[in-house]
Amino acid sequence: MTDPAALDRADPLRRFRDQFELPRGVVYLAGHSLGPLPKRTVARVAQTVQNEWGRTLVAAWDEHDWIGAPARIGAKIATLIGADADEVLVADSTSVNLFKLIAALMIAAPERRTLLIESGEFPTDMHVAQGATAALGRGRQVRFARQGQLAERIDENVALVVASHVHYRDARIRDMLAITQRAREAGALVIWDLSHSAGAILVDLHGARADFAVGCGYKYLNGGPGAPAYLYISRQWQERLSNPISGWLGHADPFSFVDSYNPAAGLARFASGTPPILALAALEAGVELMAEAPRTEMTLKTQALQQLFLDRVFARRRAGLSLLGPEDVRERGVHVALRHKRAELLVAHLARLGVISDFRPPDAMRFAFAPLYTSFADSAAAADALVQVLQTVGGRDLSPTAKVP
Amino acid sequence: MTDPAALDRADPLRRFRDQFELPRGVVYLAGHSLGPLPKRTVARVAQTVQNEWGRTLVAAWDEHDWIGAPARIGAKIATLIGADADEVLVADSTSVNLFKLIAALMIAAPERRTLLIESGEFPTDMHVAQGATAALGRGRQVRFARQGQLAERIDENVALVVASHVHYRDARIRDMLAITQRAREAGALVIWDLSHSAGAILVDLHGARADFAVGCGYKYLNGGPGAPAYLYISRQWQERLSNPISGWLGHADPFSFVDSYNPAAGLARFASGTPPILALAALEAGVELMAEAPRTEMTLKTQALQQLFLDRVFARRRAGLSLLGPEDVRERGVHVALRHKRAELLVAHLARLGVISDFRPPDAMRFAFAPLYTSFADSAAAADALVQVLQTVGGRDLSPTAKVP
Repeated sequence: MTDPAALDRADPLRRFRDQFELPRGVVYLAGHSLGPLPKRTVARVAQTVQNEWGRTLVAAWDEHDWIGAPARIGAKIATLIGADADEVLVADSTSVNLFKLIAALMIAAPERRTLLIESGEFPTDMHVAQGATAALGRGRQVRFARQGQLAERIDENVALVVASHVHYRDARIRDMLAITQRAREAGALVIWDLSHSAGAILVDLHGARADFAVGCGYKYLNGGPGAPAYLYISRQWQERLSNPISGWLGHADPFSFVDSYNPAAGLARFASGTPPILALAALEAGVELMAEAPRTEMTLKTQALQQLFLDRVFARRRAGLSLLGPEDVRERGVHVALRHKRAELLVAHLARLGVISDFRPPDAMRFAFAPLYTSFADSAAAADALVQVLQTVGGRDLSPTAKVP
Repeated sequence: MTDPAALDRADPLRRFRDQFELPRGVVYLAGHSLGPLPKRTVARVAQTVQNEWGRTLVAAWDEHDWIGAPARIGAKIATLIGADADEVLVADSTSVNLFKLIAALMIAAPERRTLLIESGEFPTDMHVAQGATAALGRGRQVRFARQGQLAERIDENVALVVASHVHYRDARIRDMLAITQRAREAGALVIWDLSHSAGAILVDLHGARADFAVGCGYKYLNGGPGAPAYLYISRQWQERLSNPISGWLGHADPFSFVDSYNPAAGLARFASGTPPILALAALEAGVELMAEAPRTEMTLKTQALQQLFLDRVFARRRAGLSLLGPEDVRERGVHVALRHKRAELLVAHLARLGVISDFRPPDAMRFAFAPLYTSFADSAAAADALVQVLQTVGGRDLSPTAKVP
């Protein structure tokens, strides 16, 4: 077994750990749910509240370029996902952006009525797809593909496919290029949800010939709880689509105060309401931090962290425990999912030992190894804690409130 | 002319002024656009960033009740607008909430296809109405009423009326009860936009028998730039409607991770994506401050502030200047709009004298007299500055960059 301390000393990313506020005694492996607080964000938000809002007041829309924040931060996110600066806009939540794209695309292709999504996708993707198709009417509906059978179910009735790049549960990385090309051959379009990949693994939208994507700001972009989300529309599509939520900030001239909606040129038309400046300040700080990190080193490190964890667990404890998702680390995002029939209990006991993971019903535990703030010592400590908890829980039917020694 | 200092000494609301961060030497009369920073908000946001996000991390969704914030803050807003606690939910932007309500209501009443709105309404109301009806299709469309003729244009083709309670431009208060009843007689529904009234003047949704409303958090609720918005649905309607943006947070059991969308009971179904916690912290602080203020005293004070301003201006300078909107102060919200052919220039020169108002094309200046932080001395100083600027500008064609002595 490799020495975690030696690996940490040799880690080319180790300077990044100090960029985050991490509570003492905690091994935080829940970045798949909420990324931790970057230290710089504290000052950035305070600056925005006290100096910009407090002192500059309404003039800050121009003087501090609040009005430009959605496009400016979008351009920074673009560098993380293989897009051009004018192809990414920060706006709303992932759910709302997904609705806007689904509605815009299904209205633009009225001859097809099926939206294809895999069963077991991230809930909001499935649920927004259902609500959007129902609201648009005219027989539009969602078709669920069985897990692993998404590509096979794309046919000439499918207008649109919605798919996560990395699956929230089993961490599998989907082949964006292959699915996009399969869809294109069938005359269908694909919206990619990058929530579990952007900022975590290499994402190359142009390389995958992707036209549409959405993603959240609060996981691997470290933008804060409920951070604003973003959407990507390739340049060739931007002016062919109408934003169904045609709010004033997507108008060609928002401050002309005219009756008629006239969409802004390019992606700006996909803005709707007034952008949330305090939340954007936090998101921008998180995104800037992520943009400073070298992507290849991040990929190599998360793979090593995952491998160390799994080796250290499975070397000592296999009974009742199995890996969910791909065996090959190169096919996984930055999290590892393990199955155990007492997963909920194990996660609760791990938390008492300071190891934060999460439980997904009925039997999955997720451990995210985000490479900028997770050390090899963390990975080893998490593995040791899991082995200890497994030994304690054993075959006994402990309640979630039972003490772990 | 009444003595401003004496009026300030006798002001029952004067203790509230110290609750706001106001830059020295500035008379801030642009609360109709962005409310100033409440002092308590600085600590509240820092607490949320550093202690809740930074130290509690993902567990804060439960431990600090982040998950309950949209309904909790909604209940506090309800006390300001004459609604019950479970009838108001904080979510998204005003534009997105308006879209959700328009789509839900027009889908629920498919036999009528017209959405009625007044020409010259606040832009996002007009623009979202146009986008939503176009997206819903089936011949649905927007009909524009001429200004002042909204009630007369409600007929048996109208499904829905969208109207601001207080007009953003001329400050006129619409008679919510009369318009709601007129609509009901014609079989139509009304969505009220409270953005320019809630937190500023008395709003009584129950008294007006109103069923639907939306509003923003960043004007008179002092929730910060681009603060989250809210929506109101009367209890009788909540379970009869479907949210077209059916995101996971509106699901009956968001963390069950099942394929099928099943709407939450009551208003909770109108949530969509993950709520923006940092922005909500600022909004909650602002709303709490507003809820501490006595409403009757606020109304009386804003009327007195407006009267002092107008008397002091018009006693000395009438040429080329006129009041836009109602003569009777009781028919206005908290702002006053004046017309002058050089309004844009006047507003720019006023800003150099430290009086912040705003310009709306082609010829309107708006001055908001929000009663919690505006003093009678402010009102007098603004009037004096306007008189001074009018004397300087006079009939001469000064450029916006010309100096005012």
